Amino acid sequence: MRALRLDDEPIVTYDEPEPAPNPDEALIALRLAGICQTDQELARGYAGFRGIMGHEFGGELLTDAGPWQAGQRVVGEINITCGQCDFCLAGIPGHCRQRAVLGIHSYPGAFADRLRLPVRNLHAVPDAIPDEVAVFTEPFAAALQVLEMAAIHPAHRVFLIGAGKLGLLAAQVLRRTGCDLAIIARQSRPIELLRRWGISWLDAREEGWLKAVYRRSAHVVIDCTGNAEGFATALELVRPRGTIVLKSTYAGLPQIDLSRVAVDEVSVVGSRCGPFEAALRIIPEVDVQSMIERIYPLDEALTAFEHATHRGVLKVLLRP
Amino acid sequence: MRALRLDDEPIVTYDEPEPAPNPDEALIALRLAGICQTDQELARGYAGFRGIMGHEFGGELLTDAGPWQAGQRVVGEINITCGQCDFCLAGIPGHCRQRAVLGIHSYPGAFADRLRLPVRNLHAVPDAIPDEVAVFTEPFAAALQVLEMAAIHPAHRVFLIGAGKLGLLAAQVLRRTGCDLAIIARQSRPIELLRRWGISWLDAREEGWLKAVYRRSAHVVIDCTGNAEGFATALELVRPRGTIVLKSTYAGLPQIDLSRVAVDEVSVVGSRCGPFEAALRIIPEVDVQSMIERIYPLDEALTAFEHATHRGVLKVLLRP
Repeated sequence: MRALRLDDEPIVTYDEPEPAPNPDEALIALRLAGICQTDQELARGYAGFRGIMGHEFGGELLTDAGPWQAGQRVVGEINITCGQCDFCLAGIPGHCRQRAVLGIHSYPGAFADRLRLPVRNLHAVPDAIPDEVAVFTEPFAAALQVLEMAAIHPAHRVFLIGAGKLGLLAAQVLRRTGCDLAIIARQSRPIELLRRWGISWLDAREEGWLKAVYRRSAHVVIDCTGNAEGFATALELVRPRGTIVLKSTYAGLPQIDLSRVAVDEVSVVGSRCGPFEAALRIIPEVDVQSMIERIYPLDEALTAFEHATHRGVLKVLLRP
Repeated sequence: MRALRLDDEPIVTYDEPEPAPNPDEALIALRLAGICQTDQELARGYAGFRGIMGHEFGGELLTDAGPWQAGQRVVGEINITCGQCDFCLAGIPGHCRQRAVLGIHSYPGAFADRLRLPVRNLHAVPDAIPDEVAVFTEPFAAALQVLEMAAIHPAHRVFLIGAGKLGLLAAQVLRRTGCDLAIIARQSRPIELLRRWGISWLDAREEGWLKAVYRRSAHVVIDCTGNAEGFATALELVRPRGTIVLKSTYAGLPQIDLSRVAVDEVSVVGSRCGPFEAALRIIPEVDVQSMIERIYPLDEALTAFEHATHRGVLKVLLRP
């Protein structure tokens, strides 16, 4: 079958062996897959992954599996867990000590004609949700996770820094809370979408965008930048006893002002994968289809991958 | 009067002008003052402070003030607040936008024969609490603040890193919760005290002290080290969704593994000044007097200050 593999660099192969599901796993035909920032970091060496890439997907069952029949459209949670370690038993299986992660860690990914995944990872996609929406389930769940990790109230002032693909999903999640929200953006395309959605933004390319009244004003700041400068801005904006939610990984070990965190009694909270059931319930009420930059056939996966690396480019998808 | 001033360096002066209290302030005669790690950082240039040093003290009113008569023994909260800004009105006056801080920021400190402080900052010291205990009220309140910033349950595994003066107070606070506690220490004197108090410790000078079973095991880790290495150890010990409480400031901008914070969904929570009323209620039930290294007369404040800089030295006090 066809697949986009990461060896020393990403390559498209046409003779990848077919997946051989374990007894608890389903065999899934890909319908649509999404390229994520994490995929690009993996290609640059993050986490040392080798194998078929891809963790954002919607597919269709090739055989009956669990409660569903062949042909059922599904999406899948990306953590493959042991179900037996202390973290699994403590109700945080996403942190399983033995976990593999679809297309990220010790488990072949979704950029292929077919893939396997444990049946318990799967969620049925309702008929009303088209493939072009379902493929956003995984990143939209990750955006929802912001609300799992920080209580955001209607009276709160909230800034989100970094209007990339995940940032735009989180912006739509945050706007639903009714909070006093502004997105700090640097690219024209995302700003265009925010304008259309009626979500406030600040253009960080403009001199003096960080006005004095914004400093130490925010109850919650979400950092979607993944760089030290973004975190430093978050520390400027958050008020004492406020919360900074980290919504991405950072290159290397950034230098950060931990003394400010201590003295201002700020909470810095990490956030990772989110709830799929909730994502499937809410995703019809937000606009993900406007975030599709382009859909490439799987044969052109390398071109798609290159396209997705450009700043300000929205979601690039792969179709078999 | 006599005072220990920080000019370009700490100096003892004998002709410091007497304090001139504002109408809302009390005039206080010093009975005993404590030298804190923060005082040493101020002497090295932290926060750019100039003036009379000292923020840990117990004293006695020289005139009637508020509900009390002259002669009443008092301790005092160190933040001098405006009472009118958004943070004061939000119930977090310790973060007042216009705050001064006793002996730390824009307000003369307590290492002097006499000092002034707003009456509303004062707390009466019960007769049962001797001066040698009352002088620990401010740092003990700061240690209690760990419990204000993180919920610590009896079933939790908790590590505290850094058994300095604040660490030893926090250790006594934490042991009262009944949690599964171990203190990570590097000096013989604190270890001796922990042994006497029946609090478990790990000697970080020993090769291999960080056993595999400790990694990612702790619900809560308190970092009292103020250095990047301490924080890195905290990240090794904390479990996913666990909490790291920062209990000190850090020199410069330490490099930290923010990706680990994000991926493990860790909470990093700052912690600063604490509740005086609670401190005065609880302090008779812990052992602070064993933590007194030596009491110097105010005239020998420079010798005392130098003595306090040595590692492993416990609390050095000044008496007028």
